[in-house]
Amino acid sequence: MSLVVQKFGGSSVADAASIKRVADRIAKYSKAGHQVVVVVSAMGDTTDELIDLAEQVTPAPPARELDMLLTAGERISMAVLSMALNADGVDARAYTGSQAGVITDEVHGRAHILKVTPGRIRDALEAGSVAIVAGFQGVSQTTKDITTLGRGGSDTTAVALAAALEADVCEIYSDVDGVFTADPRIVPSARRVPLISCEEMLDLAANGAKILMVRSVEYARRYGVPLHVRSSYSGRLGTIVSDDPERVIPIDPDVTVRTADVVRRDAADPSKELPMDFVPAPGLEAPIISGVAHDRSQGKITVVEVPDSPGKAALLFDVVAATGANIDMIVQNTSTTDDTVAISLTLPESDAPAALAAIEAAHEAIGYSEVRYDDQIGKVSIVGAGMKSHPGVSATLFRSLGEAGINIDMISTSEIRLSVVTDVSRLDDAVRVIHSAFGLDAEQTEAVVYGGTGR
Amino acid sequence: MSLVVQKFGGSSVADAASIKRVADRIAKYSKAGHQVVVVVSAMGDTTDELIDLAEQVTPAPPARELDMLLTAGERISMAVLSMALNADGVDARAYTGSQAGVITDEVHGRAHILKVTPGRIRDALEAGSVAIVAGFQGVSQTTKDITTLGRGGSDTTAVALAAALEADVCEIYSDVDGVFTADPRIVPSARRVPLISCEEMLDLAANGAKILMVRSVEYARRYGVPLHVRSSYSGRLGTIVSDDPERVIPIDPDVTVRTADVVRRDAADPSKELPMDFVPAPGLEAPIISGVAHDRSQGKITVVEVPDSPGKAALLFDVVAATGANIDMIVQNTSTTDDTVAISLTLPESDAPAALAAIEAAHEAIGYSEVRYDDQIGKVSIVGAGMKSHPGVSATLFRSLGEAGINIDMISTSEIRLSVVTDVSRLDDAVRVIHSAFGLDAEQTEAVVYGGTGR
Repeated sequence: MSLVVQKFGGSSVADAASIKRVADRIAKYSKAGHQVVVVVSAMGDTTDELIDLAEQVTPAPPARELDMLLTAGERISMAVLSMALNADGVDARAYTGSQAGVITDEVHGRAHILKVTPGRIRDALEAGSVAIVAGFQGVSQTTKDITTLGRGGSDTTAVALAAALEADVCEIYSDVDGVFTADPRIVPSARRVPLISCEEMLDLAANGAKILMVRSVEYARRYGVPLHVRSSYSGRLGTIVSDDPERVIPIDPDVTVRTADVVRRDAADPSKELPMDFVPAPGLEAPIISGVAHDRSQGKITVVEVPDSPGKAALLFDVVAATGANIDMIVQNTSTTDDTVAISLTLPESDAPAALAAIEAAHEAIGYSEVRYDDQIGKVSIVGAGMKSHPGVSATLFRSLGEAGINIDMISTSEIRLSVVTDVSRLDDAVRVIHSAFGLDAEQTEAVVYGGTGR
Repeated sequence: MSLVVQKFGGSSVADAASIKRVADRIAKYSKAGHQVVVVVSAMGDTTDELIDLAEQVTPAPPARELDMLLTAGERISMAVLSMALNADGVDARAYTGSQAGVITDEVHGRAHILKVTPGRIRDALEAGSVAIVAGFQGVSQTTKDITTLGRGGSDTTAVALAAALEADVCEIYSDVDGVFTADPRIVPSARRVPLISCEEMLDLAANGAKILMVRSVEYARRYGVPLHVRSSYSGRLGTIVSDDPERVIPIDPDVTVRTADVVRRDAADPSKELPMDFVPAPGLEAPIISGVAHDRSQGKITVVEVPDSPGKAALLFDVVAATGANIDMIVQNTSTTDDTVAISLTLPESDAPAALAAIEAAHEAIGYSEVRYDDQIGKVSIVGAGMKSHPGVSATLFRSLGEAGINIDMISTSEIRLSVVTDVSRLDDAVRVIHSAFGLDAEQTEAVVYGGTGR
């Protein structure tokens, strides 16, 4: 018997029919004797509709009241999902974040989980019930007010509960089959990645892969929770995110597998083992690159003719940091004609207005000549633990972009990641040529091996 | 400074525009320096829509999960109303029933309030905030699960909070101007009743007047909470429900009045006193009858040829009572030809199927010949404390119905009430002729006195 946490996003519970389908899946696990905790998001567009309603009343709703409003969304989906399970003959009980013991700080709209005390969930499991828990929400330790966790909060709820309950696996269900080597909408030949380390997954998520939020992956790494990212529309194997090759996890009501052996499983039918000659031995022929991520949500601020004297650049970053902006890349170019430098930085477009205002306000103190802003940029990143030992990676990347006539504007690197900024109009092309240059495109044999991947 | 509890029903908060209108009304009280607690129902048809959603998933949702689902409705309305108040410059905070300390038993769907511990509401009031509380819901003392109070539950929440907070008045807002001498849709000349005792209000509510639920009036009587039933679409005086003629209650942000003097206030402008000669002195010329209530939601079961031996009738009532049916009237007719009786009883139509099944199952034990069921009945009741001392009341009632050619099927009486059952097709006529026979129709002077009543 395993303890499985399953998280279903809004598109998986968009209407009554979807909810019944999800209930049938959960029921299979429960009826096979597993303990199941389900974390659920609000149905379909409910959250957006509630925000619309608030905006009809006031352009600036108080954060505490907005959290109270939005948490109605998961209350509806969890109650209806619980009803559907009971109709399937499975005893199920729905719990709010507060009832499930999700204790947070008091920062409404983007609260952090301080601890999870899932006493009532444990009681429900011991009584043989499936526990349905509202994602995205908790209760403030100090004020006892209802809080929400911000974007991707339901994933974080699921991972935090899995950690507190010492679950065997935390399954993240969505409408895609797992983590891919690139976005299949841009690269149709992208392949599913059967197994990935937390560090690689973190870098993919931080650089634009939307399938998992950084916070939930960080939480999973810290507490050693294996994640299984998979589709709610099939019983296929998805992507296992784990750093522990010896961990034994359930991947089907009747099948468990050692993490390192995941790549030897047939994606379409997890109960089947693949013949050895179809599968690269783990570690030996592991691909250098796990995946290609892209991000078109950033903008670039360039500050021209900053005096090249101690403290001026530091002051620039101080005033930007004080706005809470999330700076990603920084490039500094020394002028060849005078004693000034040009400093460029990238940041989320949503952070740009406040950052630009702060830089304007510090015009005299910094002493620059001009500020430029460009939101027509795109970032493409390659991520792979194999990069560390393969010195040719950056050369391959730059050559492939050069041959495709794509200009590189900025570059940043880490141990397992290489990111470049291009014009946003060439971003999709950049993703495709890089995916191809690193041999990630699916070949015929691969398609046979995995029983057909893609969306 | 007064402490005022204001309850707004679903039609008063049906959309963003209505919510802003309600917020403006609350803001007037708050800005005048009063402490205000607001109890709010779910927006418009939200509750029905949530029930529809549940029924799409299962015909028989578990009661615990249904309560969890339905309470999302008030969560939305209370959060949005709180936002609207904050947008009006009034500090407001929304609280669930649980947060407001509404502690109930564990009977999902029709829980009873065991106690109210409104510590957080008191804190909010002391901090100068308006407290918005979700109506209709509480939390079980034993299981800590979320419960709902059943039909009219928001009124009960409001009265219970008013009692616990020792509020000066509990205002019940709806889309009508108060309690009328009859339903104005049936009797256009019906008049608003400015002041009514709890006992009379109870009898009106129990016999079909829909403006207040019996439970909330019982609660108000037990704890001495004065109620003020009024329209959310005007600032008019409505109906005060109280047994204490000396109670001083606020009826406007700037006006308080002694209960017994309520009838001397201009309905359209509560700040105006009426000249003495326009108003009957309280007690001296009080009308015999306070109002005419009607109810078309009952059915009649008739059990024919029940043996007239000890215990047979008792057995009949035992089996019906065991189904939880709410029996209203009972009539027994002894046969003149043999040793049997016919027993008729009325009960809510929704209780009839279970009651009929139980009577069928006890056919042999009781030994009757036949069961008949008639759902085409209507009940009309007159209620008034003055009836006790006026022996001609029943004669006036029967004469007026007889002259109109309306047959009386069953009769029941109490100290302050007289009810008759007629064919449902004549019910509206019965209400009109009785209303007229007891001199309740509005006259020209009355319309002037109250500045125009009606819906």
